[in-house]
Formats: sequence, structure tokens, C-alpha cells
Amino acid sequence: MVVSLPWLNFLSGTQFLISQTAPVLAAATESENSPIVLASVLLSLVIVYVASKLGGELCARIDLPPVLGELVGGVAVGVSALHLLVFPMSGIDASSSLMMQMIQMSAHLSPESLTAVFQSQSEVISVLAEIGVVILLFEIGLESDLKELIRVGPQAAIVAVVGVVAPFALGTAGLMLLFHVAVVPAIFAGAALTATSIGITARVLAEIQQLASKEGQIIVGAAVLDDVLGIIVLAVVAGLAKTGEVQVGNVIYLVVSAGVFLVGSIWLGRLLNPFFVALVNELRTRGQVLITALIFVFLLSYIAAVIQLEAILGAFAAGLILAETEKREELKDQVVPIADMLVPIFFVVVGAKTDISVLNPFVPENREGLITAAFLVVVAIVGKVVTGFTLVGQPSLNQWAIGIGMIPRGEVGLVFAAIGASSGVLPDSLQAAIVVMVILTTFVAPPLLRVAFSNQAAQTSLSEEAEILNKSALVDDELITETTLPEDKQTANE
Amino acid sequence: MVVSLPWLNFLSGTQFLISQTAPVLAAATESENSPIVLASVLLSLVIVYVASKLGGELCARIDLPPVLGELVGGVAVGVSALHLLVFPMSGIDASSSLMMQMIQMSAHLSPESLTAVFQSQSEVISVLAEIGVVILLFEIGLESDLKELIRVGPQAAIVAVVGVVAPFALGTAGLMLLFHVAVVPAIFAGAALTATSIGITARVLAEIQQLASKEGQIIVGAAVLDDVLGIIVLAVVAGLAKTGEVQVGNVIYLVVSAGVFLVGSIWLGRLLNPFFVALVNELRTRGQVLITALIFVFLLSYIAAVIQLEAILGAFAAGLILAETEKREELKDQVVPIADMLVPIFFVVVGAKTDISVLNPFVPENREGLITAAFLVVVAIVGKVVTGFTLVGQPSLNQWAIGIGMIPRGEVGLVFAAIGASSGVLPDSLQAAIVVMVILTTFVAPPLLRVAFSNQAAQTSLSEEAEILNKSALVDDELITETTLPEDKQTANE
Repeated sequence: MVVSLPWLNFLSGTQFLISQTAPVLAAATESENSPIVLASVLLSLVIVYVASKLGGELCARIDLPPVLGELVGGVAVGVSALHLLVFPMSGIDASSSLMMQMIQMSAHLSPESLTAVFQSQSEVISVLAEIGVVILLFEIGLESDLKELIRVGPQAAIVAVVGVVAPFALGTAGLMLLFHVAVVPAIFAGAALTATSIGITARVLAEIQQLASKEGQIIVGAAVLDDVLGIIVLAVVAGLAKTGEVQVGNVIYLVVSAGVFLVGSIWLGRLLNPFFVALVNELRTRGQVLITALIFVFLLSYIAAVIQLEAILGAFAAGLILAETEKREELKDQVVPIADMLVPIFFVVVGAKTDISVLNPFVPENREGLITAAFLVVVAIVGKVVTGFTLVGQPSLNQWAIGIGMIPRGEVGLVFAAIGASSGVLPDSLQAAIVVMVILTTFVAPPLLRVAFSNQAAQTSLSEEAEILNKSALVDDELITETTLPEDKQTANE
Repeated sequence: MVVSLPWLNFLSGTQFLISQTAPVLAAATESENSPIVLASVLLSLVIVYVASKLGGELCARIDLPPVLGELVGGVAVGVSALHLLVFPMSGIDASSSLMMQMIQMSAHLSPESLTAVFQSQSEVISVLAEIGVVILLFEIGLESDLKELIRVGPQAAIVAVVGVVAPFALGTAGLMLLFHVAVVPAIFAGAALTATSIGITARVLAEIQQLASKEGQIIVGAAVLDDVLGIIVLAVVAGLAKTGEVQVGNVIYLVVSAGVFLVGSIWLGRLLNPFFVALVNELRTRGQVLITALIFVFLLSYIAAVIQLEAILGAFAAGLILAETEKREELKDQVVPIADMLVPIFFVVVGAKTDISVLNPFVPENREGLITAAFLVVVAIVGKVVTGFTLVGQPSLNQWAIGIGMIPRGEVGLVFAAIGASSGVLPDSLQAAIVVMVILTTFVAPPLLRVAFSNQAAQTSLSEEAEILNKSALVDDELITETTLPEDKQTANE
């Protein structure tokens, strides 16, 4: 049987080759591989969804947050274990990817083509994951209440600032005094302890339906401010690592642009909301609300990314703004399937990219890092948990939940580690310690947060139960005088 | 102000850098650019959605199919006009892309980084477009009725075979006799006239709510068979162009694999349907139906792509199978927003990649091609329209609609042109003529199809009106004897 692949690669019915047709066929390698790239992206998505559902369902059954299951599912298929879904990095190429080997078995690509397909597939899945977290933050914004957020703003600001200062001070001082680390790397590691991962926390809050609670809104508000503070701390520390001095102009630029962007976009957005509704009502083709909203979301995300903030800030702002329109419920309903489709990609990819081998205490090189890591983990948790208790004089507030909600560090901590490593400031053991700290805070926070909120729920339901008991006693007393009612109803139905 | 970008590029909150962190930072260029890639993908999506909505709404207002507007919107932002959204090909690099220049203005990338970002952005948008058409075919499958499709199978097969043979024979003979083209290029161009673009037709059918009609199901069935026939014709012709002889083994392989895949997947899928429903009912986390279905869709699409058929065939089969479960309605509701989000990307990208400059008669080099093109367009339309009239003895059938539904050639025709050009078999003018034929059939079919169906609708609604008139006369007669009923109801409600 003659199966000659060079021309079969052209058989992409979904790809319009007109661009290569006129006037001549160029960029041949890219288009030749494109059906294989599509096939590998489709297979990646199958792996992502199976991992997310297996992990999520398992966690749901042992009463842990599904998002934790998605992270663990990602770890299982990723670089730490099965190697089904890996991403290009040092020591990892197409031959390390079990999935690419499956693709290779069926497609017989040249080594160069295989590498190109691996790169493209990784790029597409990474961007899909990033769009996933953009959609997640948009959904969080839609579920949030801008007025409530402004009302809890001062409290959120306190939580955010304390949650940046406390772990930074404790971490830097502890590393210098207890571990005799030099000033600059100690500051670097301390800075890596500052910023909360809004994605993890917000997802767990949504899962346990606490996003709209006062605690939930304080956590979300503080996490957003934290994100901005994290960007600023990063600017300071990276400048310090690079030139040995703080780049004041840049810090001012970031503070101003973050402030102008958040306040400006929300102000302008609210102003334009009536036009959004009018436009949507004018449209006649499919996806009126959804596409109009997505244009707005992606535009704000783009602007946020381009002014060197983060895309997710723009998505969150867009969600907050559109939540104020009468289209909120319709929009929420339509975003649910899109979030279901894209958000798991983010969490599985986070898990898949996480190399948990640094946690192995049987590898001698890991030990020094693990001891430092243990210290960093304690500081990371304590430094955030205390933030809840800075909100004094509000006995009804679940202070534990707020502090615990700020624990997961996620991506920003790793950005610090990456920059520290690339600039040569961080010793290997300290870098590994930061990675361990990020892994543990990210994985430990979701179940703790659920416990913190379920304690509250248990208390509430206990008092509710007591109330119900009281009521039923009352009903018993009244039953005799009220027995005519059912009969009355019966007659009416005859 | 000091804005040093190398480190600011790390500020991707949505990207987990752990992979680069431990043990060392490699693949730096890729990750450095990744926030910019995300930003450019977000901006591309904004452009895609604005183009699709502007074009779609405009067409809806002048009573043309919205999908045509999306194609035209794509042409407007693409390589033919605004150059906002272009894709890498000969003569087109990052500097030709207005969008990349906007990105460059804000991000100050090096030329190499800009090229890398342009490549990544194009790759991601192309794959999103392909996933869009996968979702479209899944939706079409969900809306189709397998039993009806099997029932109209023989008719669909006649339409498909005639629709391949007639334009091929007419085109090849005409080119040889009227234009004195040599045998091999004539066969090539004739072959390019064969395969229908299922995406365009199915989308228009869905828009005018004729997908579930008998004509709609014949068209969809014939278009799917056409797709398989197109793959086989392509194999024959490409082998001919390459080695001068027909690769019989390969043709047999394709026929067998297509048959086994379609029949096998549908048979096995129907067998497994109860397990799908049971599994979905077991799941407790968000997106039970949707994610389980997507796993199935993407898996079948992947298999179809890997056995050298097309991903969309797998997606269509998956839709057909899941349409038979009790989850059909729930699934359809959830797929709508996802289709709204992804399908327009496909049509806008098709438009954006289409270079309509070959249509310009004022460019002398275009003229020879345009005359040949005029002939090919006539053959392409006549060769497909006749297919409807092969279904004799069924006066209730809208034969015009069936023939017109098969007109759009879309992607497959361009694949022929591309292979012909790359193997040196097709002269430039003939290649350009094929491109023109594809453009015109693709753009002309949607409005024609609507006219064909609206004539029928007008006739139906006329006869329906007559029926309603008859009925209302009947009701008038019966009113007197039936007037007690409302009173009866009233008493019951008292």
C-alpha cells in the first residue's frame, strides 16, 4: 500500500489554502503540518478533559474541591508522571511527550516536523489555557457585585496590603536571620511570597457558592489588588536584581496605569452600558449578547495586557461592568458552557507544567531546598492567614476564611523564581524552595478554604436547625386550629 | 521612565512558569513572548468578532445569509483589503499585518520576536478556526436525524456521485476541447470542481431552519459523502500528478478506512450511548454533559484526522450518535454558545485568507485566468444543480434547492489548486481560474440557497394559509355547538 504523506498532509478540509495558492506556495512546512497540529490539539484536549473529569470527580467524591482534582489530574498527565501532556522546556522535547509519540506513530513525521508540531501544539494549548483563565475572571466579575466590592473596598485593601507586607517582612527577615541568606536573594524570596493567585481562590469560592458572600467579595477584591501590588513588587525587585537599584519611574508608571485602567475602564464601562444593551437589542444574528460581550472582554483584556498589567484584570473589569446591565443573567447562562469548556484547560495545564520531583526528599539535592521550603510554606500561610484578623470589630465576619482565601500563590510566585533564576540572583536551593512553596500553598488552600466556609455553614445550619425545631414546636401547637386548611384545599380541587 | 521589556514580558499571570524554573530557564524566547502572543490573539479575536458581526448584521438587513456577511467581513479585514488579520505566506510577513504593527507599537519587540509572535498568533487563530468548524459539524450532526439520513441515503448517494462525475467530466472535456489544455492539468482542474464545502452549506441550512427538512438531510448526507469522494479523487489526482500513475493501494485504503470509520463509529457509538447517558448521570462536577460529549467529539475527530480522513467527519459522526441519546436537547443548548464563539472564527478566517485580487480584470495577467474561470464557474454551478434533478419521481422534493446546496466548493477546491501548483502540473492561469471558481461558488451559493428555499416556503405558506382559512371556516361552524366548553372550565376553576 502506498501511503505518501507529503501530499496527504494537504488534506485539511478545514483549512483554506487560498493564501498559499496565489501566487505561489510558500510557508509549506507550516501548512503541511497543519492537519497534524489540529489532530494533536484535539488529542491534547481529550487528555485535558479526561484528566480534569477524573480528578474533579474523584475530589468531589472525597469531599475536596474539584479544582484541586483538576490540578492533580494535570500533574498525573504532565511532566511529573505520565508525560502525556508536556510543554517544551529544558530537557523536554517532542520525544519526551508520550502524546507526540502517538502522533508520530500514525503520521511518520520527520524529526523537524515533529518538533514544529510539538511547538505549535504546546503554543495553542497554552494560549487556550490563558483564554480559559480570562473567561474564568470574566465569569468571576459577572458574579461579583461592583457596589458590594466598593463597599468592602477598604477592608479588601487592608487585607491586600497586610497580605503583601507580612509575608514579605517575615520571609526576608527569617531567611536572613535563620538561614543566613544574603540581602538581595532574601528580598527576592520574600517578594515571591506576596501575591495571591486569584484564579484558584475564585474558582473554589464559586464551587462552594461563597463568591457573592461578604467574605467572598473581600477575598476577590483583595486578590485583585494583590495582583496589582504583585506586579509592582515584581517591578521593584526585578529592577533591584538587574541594576541594583529601584526603578522609580517604572513603579510610578505601573501604579498610575493600574489605577487609571481599573477606575477608568469601570467608569467608562458603566457610562457605555446603556449603549451595550441598545446594541445587543438591535442585533439580529446569532450570539447577540455573547459576541458583543466577548468583544468587550477581549478588548479590555488586550488593553490590560498591552499596558503591562495582566489580561485577567481586564477580563475581571469587563465582568464587573457587564454585571450591571440587564443582560447579566442571559450572559451568565451563555458563559457557563464556554467556561466549562475552557477553564479546565487552565487548571490541567498548570498541573501538567508543575514538576513535583523537587518535592522528593530521597533526592539529596532536594533536601536543603526542602528545609528552606518548609520555612517559606509556614511564612506563606501564616502571613496570609493573619490578614483576616486585621479586620477587627466585625464578629460576623469569617476571618479564617478570608485569610485562607489569600493563601494560594500560583503563577506570580513562579514568575519571581523564574526572574530570580534568570538574573542569577537566586541560589538553586532557594529557587527550588520557592517552587515547593507555590505548589504546597496552591494545593493546600482549596480544601482548607472549604473547611473554613463549611464550619461557618455548619454553625449557620446548626442555628437554622434550632430555629426549625422551634418553628416545628410552634406548628405542633397550631396544628389543631389549622387542620381545616387542607380540607379546604381539597374542596377547592374537586 | 525606565521601561525595560525583557523582564516585563515575564508578567504573565496566566502562565505557570514552573517548567522553566526548575532546573534552569530555557525556551526563553517562547515564554518571554507569551503575554504578547496572548495579547495579539485577544486582539485578533476582537477583529474577528467585529468583522463577523458587522458583515453578518449587514447581510441580515439586506436579506442575505449572515454567513456570507462573515465571509465578506473576513475579506474586508484580511489580505485583500485592510490587512488587519493576515496569515504568513509568500510576500506576507509580520510587517504586512496592521495588527502586528499595532502590537509592535506597544511592545517594542525585536524583529525576530515579532516574527515569532506573528507565527504563533496565526497558528493559534488557524487552529481555533479549525476547532470552530469541528464544533459546527458537531452541531450539524446533533441537529441531524440518523434515521432520516439513512432513509435518504440512496438519494444522497445519487446526488453525491452525480455531483462528482458531472462537473469532473464537463470540466475536463471542456478544458481540453474549448481551451486546448493538456490532459493532466485538465483532469486536475476537473477534479477541483468535484467536492462540495459542507461547512458553508450546512451553516446556511441551519440559518434558514432547513437542516431537518428532507432536502436539508439529502444535502448534508450528499455533502458528507462528497467529502469522502473528494478525498479519494484527490488521492487519485495527486498520485497522478506525482508519479504519473494512480496509486490503487492508497485509493483502496481511503475507501475502506472511510467506510469502516463512518459505519463503525456510528454502530459502536449507538452501542455505547446508554453508557454515555449513565456516565453523565453519575457525574457531579460542572459541565457533565458538555465535557463528556466534547471528549467523544474530539476523540472521533482526532481518529478521523489520523486515519487521513478529516476531523470534521469525526465531529459529524459524533453529533449523529449523541443526537440519539436523551441528552440531545440539553447538549444542543450548551453547544450553542460555544458554536457562537468559535464558528465565526472559521468563516472570518476563510474570508481573511482569500485574496480577491485575482478577480481584478484591470490587471492584464488576470484576464486569461478570468475567461477560463468563467467557464469553470458555469460548469461548477451547472454540474451541481443538475444533481437535484436526478431525483426523479418525487414531485414534493425541492430539486433546485438540493442542486444549489451542493454548489459551494470552499476549501477542497483550493487544496487541489495548491497541490497542482506545488507539483508544477497546473499553469498559473488555470490555478488562478480554480481560485476564482472557488470564491464565486462559495459566495454565490448562500443567497441562491435562500432563494430556492424561500420560493418553497412561499408556496408552502400559501397552501398553509389556505388550510388555515378552511380551518377557521370550520371553527366558525363549530363555535355555536362548542361554546359550553369555556363556561364548563370556568365552573371548574371556581
